Amino acid sequence: MPKWVTSRQILATARYRPDPPRIATPAAGPPPKDNVTRRPTPPMIIDCHGHYTTAPEAHQLFRKAQLAHFAKPSGAAPAPSAIGDDQIRESVEGNQLRLIRERGADMTLFSPRASAMAHHEGDERVSQSWTRACNDLIKRVVDLFPENFAGVCQLPQSPGAPIANSVAELRRCVLELGFVGCNLNPDPSGGHWTAAPLTDRSWYPFYEAMVELDVPAMIHVSSSCNPNFHATGAHYINADTTAFMQFIEGDLFKDFPSLRFVIPHGGGAVPYHWGRYRGLADMLKRPPLVRHVMKNVWFDTCVYHQPGIDLLFEVIAIDNILFGSEMVGAVRGIDPETGHYFDDTKRYVDALDLSAEDQLKVFELNARRVYPRLDKALKAAGR
Amino acid sequence: MPKWVTSRQILATARYRPDPPRIATPAAGPPPKDNVTRRPTPPMIIDCHGHYTTAPEAHQLFRKAQLAHFAKPSGAAPAPSAIGDDQIRESVEGNQLRLIRERGADMTLFSPRASAMAHHEGDERVSQSWTRACNDLIKRVVDLFPENFAGVCQLPQSPGAPIANSVAELRRCVLELGFVGCNLNPDPSGGHWTAAPLTDRSWYPFYEAMVELDVPAMIHVSSSCNPNFHATGAHYINADTTAFMQFIEGDLFKDFPSLRFVIPHGGGAVPYHWGRYRGLADMLKRPPLVRHVMKNVWFDTCVYHQPGIDLLFEVIAIDNILFGSEMVGAVRGIDPETGHYFDDTKRYVDALDLSAEDQLKVFELNARRVYPRLDKALKAAGR
Repeated sequence: MPKWVTSRQILATARYRPDPPRIATPAAGPPPKDNVTRRPTPPMIIDCHGHYTTAPEAHQLFRKAQLAHFAKPSGAAPAPSAIGDDQIRESVEGNQLRLIRERGADMTLFSPRASAMAHHEGDERVSQSWTRACNDLIKRVVDLFPENFAGVCQLPQSPGAPIANSVAELRRCVLELGFVGCNLNPDPSGGHWTAAPLTDRSWYPFYEAMVELDVPAMIHVSSSCNPNFHATGAHYINADTTAFMQFIEGDLFKDFPSLRFVIPHGGGAVPYHWGRYRGLADMLKRPPLVRHVMKNVWFDTCVYHQPGIDLLFEVIAIDNILFGSEMVGAVRGIDPETGHYFDDTKRYVDALDLSAEDQLKVFELNARRVYPRLDKALKAAGR
Repeated sequence: MPKWVTSRQILATARYRPDPPRIATPAAGPPPKDNVTRRPTPPMIIDCHGHYTTAPEAHQLFRKAQLAHFAKPSGAAPAPSAIGDDQIRESVEGNQLRLIRERGADMTLFSPRASAMAHHEGDERVSQSWTRACNDLIKRVVDLFPENFAGVCQLPQSPGAPIANSVAELRRCVLELGFVGCNLNPDPSGGHWTAAPLTDRSWYPFYEAMVELDVPAMIHVSSSCNPNFHATGAHYINADTTAFMQFIEGDLFKDFPSLRFVIPHGGGAVPYHWGRYRGLADMLKRPPLVRHVMKNVWFDTCVYHQPGIDLLFEVIAIDNILFGSEMVGAVRGIDPETGHYFDDTKRYVDALDLSAEDQLKVFELNARRVYPRLDKALKAAGR
């Protein structure tokens, strides 16, 4: 069981309630103070990384029909499948929701299944239609379980399509559906890496919209059509590492000081090679990473064993870590060494025996800072 | 200072001298015993990962001329530059050799500069000629400093060229020049990943030669011509991770039980995500990693900070770790947090306070096992 509360710890953390929601330099400097006395309860557990991997089969059948129509067009393009509320309830209650309750989480940032985004399949029109259906389904999950899920959207990216074309769907999801973030694919080609680096100006129209809407992006590739890269075993981790190195090389956060990215899967290889990255920044005459990158980048805790989590918390500042599990995702089995699910990452974080203050940051406050629209919605609901 | 020797530790390690040099299941089971009493000295420090990054400028000028001739052929192709022994001595004595001495190493496995292999430049003929010149230069370094260097060769790979075409250069280097291993590039396209995975049968002719000659390969990409991938900050690490995942997916070591690979840079992201890889092996219905991959794969210690090295030794069996520094390589600066060079990896290993037995393995015995031709040469020299 987590050791949340001693009265002294509660007193010590009372001042760490984030307000205002808009943040200039989120990870730097002391956290904002306010006069709100924090309630003497455990932190809200916010899982920043959940995908709807268990969507009803009918949804995937639509995708199949859509791609079949693209390959051999005849008649009108297929429409999204009709899916009943009961089907959605069932798909979530026996899976994510059950696990969330068993593992003791409160709120999951929920986005369409990452491997199914498959921006490299079909064309931009197909991607638009698929993305819209995926995001609409997330909205229905959120509406059915508003206390447990907040929406994060997929984008209608497509190889060669300008990222500006994804802004409308971002706006729709944030402004009309109430979503709090998005997943940005740095490689819509699915393992051929034909797009420009994330620091290239071609991405700027999208960053401008992110800043205006005050939403972060999780950098998340999809499946790989390059046989060299297993999706969850190589492509995901490589993309995380690649994005971080692009940020070191570039000067993106000078142009967008309030842009915020979550690099999932514990930051790819970065924390393990933190010395290499500090040294490379130095060799490339970049400022130290804490100033150059880490005011705008957060890592999640999707690292599926204790020594990895230990390392993450040893080298990365607590203000830059968001709790995440990607549960019912890449690795679904039970670790024979522990007898627990590999992706039950809360166990690993609990085992760190963090101070109450640090627990509060990792499980709740950092997420509220990175996702101010989530913070606002939670506050509006009195949470 | 390392704490090598207590008389009890020496006694405890006396039986760990590897013999015979040919090994069937290198990392599994107890080490072979023999009757040789080990001399009561510290282990020989064998650095498995050194590149000739400081080769005389004339060598790079040849490369320039060669590529210029390829771009605009006129007259005969340029020949390798004439380089004097003094130039070679000077290029090594003030750099690698000085550092080897300062840091207390004995023997470095030395190969051509990895980023300069650039198999994607020119064509196969150009790669052949460049590779031969690079390997010949390594041979001259080894001849000048036989006590400090053993040769590891570059291969004349080229995008689309069958790997069988690299066998002749491997044979030349091993049988004529006395080299003990090679560097195999899983992505000769330089960041476009157009080759088949390493488990594909198209690589088999080369593996057959490796087995026949009893030499291992370090899996090492070269520079990247894909702007997404910084060479040493993304492409190298991604390639390490990718290769490991390919081995999980495939069944290569069933076909080649004695094939041996070194995955450099601490195994890329693998040790940090060891739980993910154990879990993925399980999901993919592969045998446990220790049996499926780790009888044939070793990681080096090119991880440039203490927490990373701590993690490596915590999750990876001591029998699968080879000391390496890649010194005068990717990261050449001094870590402001420690006051020491980032790539002085011996410090990190020393700080682990390993048992004498484990030190012996990491610094010497594992390398003798993975590189039996090195072991044989050392023994012939009475070492």
